[in-house]
Amino acid sequence: MTSLTKLTHCLVFFFLVISFPLTLSSPPLHLRSSRNAPRFFSDFSRTTNNTRQFKDSRYRYETRYFEQILDHFSFSDLPTFRQRYLINTEHWVGPGRLGPIFFYCGNEGDIEWFAVNTGFVWEIAPRFGAMIVFPEHRYYGESMPYGSREEAYKNVTTLAHLTSEQALADYAVLITELKRNLSAQACPVVLFGGSYGGMLAAWMRLKYPHIAIGALASSAPVLQFEDIVPPETFYDIVSNDFRRESVNCFNTIKESWNVIASEGEKNYGLSHLTSTFRFCKKLETADDLSNWLSSAYSYLAMGNYPYPSDFLMPMPGNPIKEVCRRIDSCPDGTGILQCIFEGVSVYYNYTGTVNCFNLDDDPHGMTSGWDWQACTEMIMPVASSKNTSMFPAYDYNYTSDEEWCLENFHVKPRPTWITTEFGGHGFNKVLKTFGSNIIFSNGLLDPWSGGSVLEDISDTIVALVTEKGAHHLDLRPATAEDPDWLVEQRTAEVELIKVWLEEYYGKREATFDM
Amino acid sequence: MTSLTKLTHCLVFFFLVISFPLTLSSPPLHLRSSRNAPRFFSDFSRTTNNTRQFKDSRYRYETRYFEQILDHFSFSDLPTFRQRYLINTEHWVGPGRLGPIFFYCGNEGDIEWFAVNTGFVWEIAPRFGAMIVFPEHRYYGESMPYGSREEAYKNVTTLAHLTSEQALADYAVLITELKRNLSAQACPVVLFGGSYGGMLAAWMRLKYPHIAIGALASSAPVLQFEDIVPPETFYDIVSNDFRRESVNCFNTIKESWNVIASEGEKNYGLSHLTSTFRFCKKLETADDLSNWLSSAYSYLAMGNYPYPSDFLMPMPGNPIKEVCRRIDSCPDGTGILQCIFEGVSVYYNYTGTVNCFNLDDDPHGMTSGWDWQACTEMIMPVASSKNTSMFPAYDYNYTSDEEWCLENFHVKPRPTWITTEFGGHGFNKVLKTFGSNIIFSNGLLDPWSGGSVLEDISDTIVALVTEKGAHHLDLRPATAEDPDWLVEQRTAEVELIKVWLEEYYGKREATFDM
Repeated sequence: MTSLTKLTHCLVFFFLVISFPLTLSSPPLHLRSSRNAPRFFSDFSRTTNNTRQFKDSRYRYETRYFEQILDHFSFSDLPTFRQRYLINTEHWVGPGRLGPIFFYCGNEGDIEWFAVNTGFVWEIAPRFGAMIVFPEHRYYGESMPYGSREEAYKNVTTLAHLTSEQALADYAVLITELKRNLSAQACPVVLFGGSYGGMLAAWMRLKYPHIAIGALASSAPVLQFEDIVPPETFYDIVSNDFRRESVNCFNTIKESWNVIASEGEKNYGLSHLTSTFRFCKKLETADDLSNWLSSAYSYLAMGNYPYPSDFLMPMPGNPIKEVCRRIDSCPDGTGILQCIFEGVSVYYNYTGTVNCFNLDDDPHGMTSGWDWQACTEMIMPVASSKNTSMFPAYDYNYTSDEEWCLENFHVKPRPTWITTEFGGHGFNKVLKTFGSNIIFSNGLLDPWSGGSVLEDISDTIVALVTEKGAHHLDLRPATAEDPDWLVEQRTAEVELIKVWLEEYYGKREATFDM
Repeated sequence: MTSLTKLTHCLVFFFLVISFPLTLSSPPLHLRSSRNAPRFFSDFSRTTNNTRQFKDSRYRYETRYFEQILDHFSFSDLPTFRQRYLINTEHWVGPGRLGPIFFYCGNEGDIEWFAVNTGFVWEIAPRFGAMIVFPEHRYYGESMPYGSREEAYKNVTTLAHLTSEQALADYAVLITELKRNLSAQACPVVLFGGSYGGMLAAWMRLKYPHIAIGALASSAPVLQFEDIVPPETFYDIVSNDFRRESVNCFNTIKESWNVIASEGEKNYGLSHLTSTFRFCKKLETADDLSNWLSSAYSYLAMGNYPYPSDFLMPMPGNPIKEVCRRIDSCPDGTGILQCIFEGVSVYYNYTGTVNCFNLDDDPHGMTSGWDWQACTEMIMPVASSKNTSMFPAYDYNYTSDEEWCLENFHVKPRPTWITTEFGGHGFNKVLKTFGSNIIFSNGLLDPWSGGSVLEDISDTIVALVTEKGAHHLDLRPATAEDPDWLVEQRTAEVELIKVWLEEYYGKREATFDM
């Protein structure tokens, strides 16, 4: 599988359909495609013919299946489905000693992929004598209602129950039944999650405090809804990640969009762009190229780890530094497009093995569950500022997103539902007086960090922020190259989890007979 | 409308189908009908041809309708429905002064009936400069999905969305939209509710702390699930209510069941029972009579108010005292059945205007939404102890309840769902570390009080218990006959609500710029 086809399997926020004002002083900017709006790291295994295995000999687990109710909140006569979960009880000290249960809230993808990329949980569990459970999110991986992915993704009716509330209820029911079967009702549950999984972990701690004693929510943009944070936040952070490496690099990228758009208007311009960027097939529009580049910059920012990684794509450590090094060292007289190509190759072709690139073959098909979630509940406004972003400027336009979702998925988004259900406006205040035992961990290089919680809310709702961290870096396996600040962040997390458990065990003694 | 037909409109816990062991030493006890298991006070207006008006000139409100999503937790392509709500803004000081919103969580019935029976909220709102909102629970009163009650109650598919989680989401969405329309986003919401409405108020405060700052949950048996409290609790309390008035009264009732059962076995026995108890139509079984009596005793316990009331039926103050007075003063030589009849007439015929009584005409029809709720989520185990109950002894038998629900409603109950979703086991401990600002008010004469929270959990989760109170007495309008302990209970409630609001206003100033 080429690096590029891997990329096309990433999930997208479909809903951004943005138009740009035309100005006289510059050539018309391209119309951004909704396919290339920011997205999370996500699932590489969602196509039916995928055979990639997510195995890592360090992580041993048993794969089990649990019969789940499709609709927890209604009594519709619907078929149940098999939810997959991975479980390891090797280090668990058992119910007699109240061994904890470390429960990772599965994201929008194959759970095995998240399991092998969440080394932190595997590494700390033995120290706590903890059981490890990685449940898969409904409608992803093997956890398909209606028997198959094809049937589950057939239409609005079959997809209807792909929502975060139903997923949380799955987890609540699974934990409850698992504990009952193991006579482990009194064992404390600690939640983990990164990105969307981190949002689920935080929300679950808020909505089901009787089920889990605490949550580590890594890179969880729980405030990236409605007008809680400015919609420009995401692209401003990506842009800053480049500017902090080099102002020239930032400016070159910022200038490139108009060059690409102008080139696309010329005779043979698309052919020229196609060959410069080595696409296998001729580009149909210059926008496709711009979107392909935007994606890369966003992913580079999310995966801007201090050591080489192979999470989304094989990348060097500090990959943005490398992109900018290449752009900045572009020989005099080289055209801006060639410089941009050299830079973005750090993302799309770091191994140097790709001969030509492909765009997504099916840009408008309903290719992923996240597309559905982004057109229903997960309406996270994103825009690009004229001044502070290196991306083409555009405003957030909900109306066109809604039209797009109606047209493509026959579903009307509910843009205010997530904040109604989980809070958001005044979140800090509510959490201060009500919540407890949540760690919001973030790295400021991560463009999603701007939509998360970056300041301590109380003694027990804590923000662990690293200046140089990227997207849920803390959850990744420890490496020999881990910088001190990362080691310290993880140590702080372990200490807080210890406090939660000690408090639980202490209180339990005191209130055992309640 | 006669007193009796009013009774037959009450909602029942359908699901109790209980069998009794036969013993040689006593005649076979009757098989209890599921129709006559304990129930809440409930809706008198659920039949389609009901024309009863619930008006009280003391309570002025505007009736409005809000377009609600039928399924908040899925994106099924379902029609919206009109939710009715009553609103009064007469005393509201408005958004500029952060006027509070007093929001009553509508129960399983016509909201106008609850509005006029919840005088407490109307009486205290002006003192707080509060707006009053009484939303109607979905599938009750006028708030019918699918255009009509007939359509909404057609089958499992149309009834599917009658659940407590959907009702809470309705309230959350309604509050959010109402505030948005009034630019009142910063105005604090205080929840109120009695009985099932009290459960909703408590659960809403736990699940939606960002929406409401506190809840007064009156007579809310949030712990009456699974094995959290003994299933004998309800009937033990009813029985104690009688025994505390008179041991003879208690014993007479306890003996009466066998007498009734024996009589039913005799030739002409049913005719004799029919005439003794003045039924309009001949009894078909002795059990029907026993259930009719059991109902009365349970309602007498719930409505055992210190002053005359007309909530369910016209009754004197301290009605159980009056029942026992009649039973105890039964002339020597009068048969036990005649004595029982004299006693129960306090409930069924206090005004003396009823010539003959009717049983429910349609004992197995799906006549109410509560029947559905009791066969789906609201699985509240009830049993009757051989020793401590004055009712015929029986064990709780979930299996037969499930069979009954499958057979009659084609729906399988989820008996562990409510505690999974809202907590229950270790409720106190969870609330102590997590919840705040809930008043659980109860009167110990109320048989539902045993399933509620009767001890303070923390400084802000408070149990206000009166020894002589009955079912959500505190929410009723003030009367000249209110005993001191009731006045004090209400004063304490007002004081706590004041504290919540002051804390909110104080915190708001401190964190206004968050």
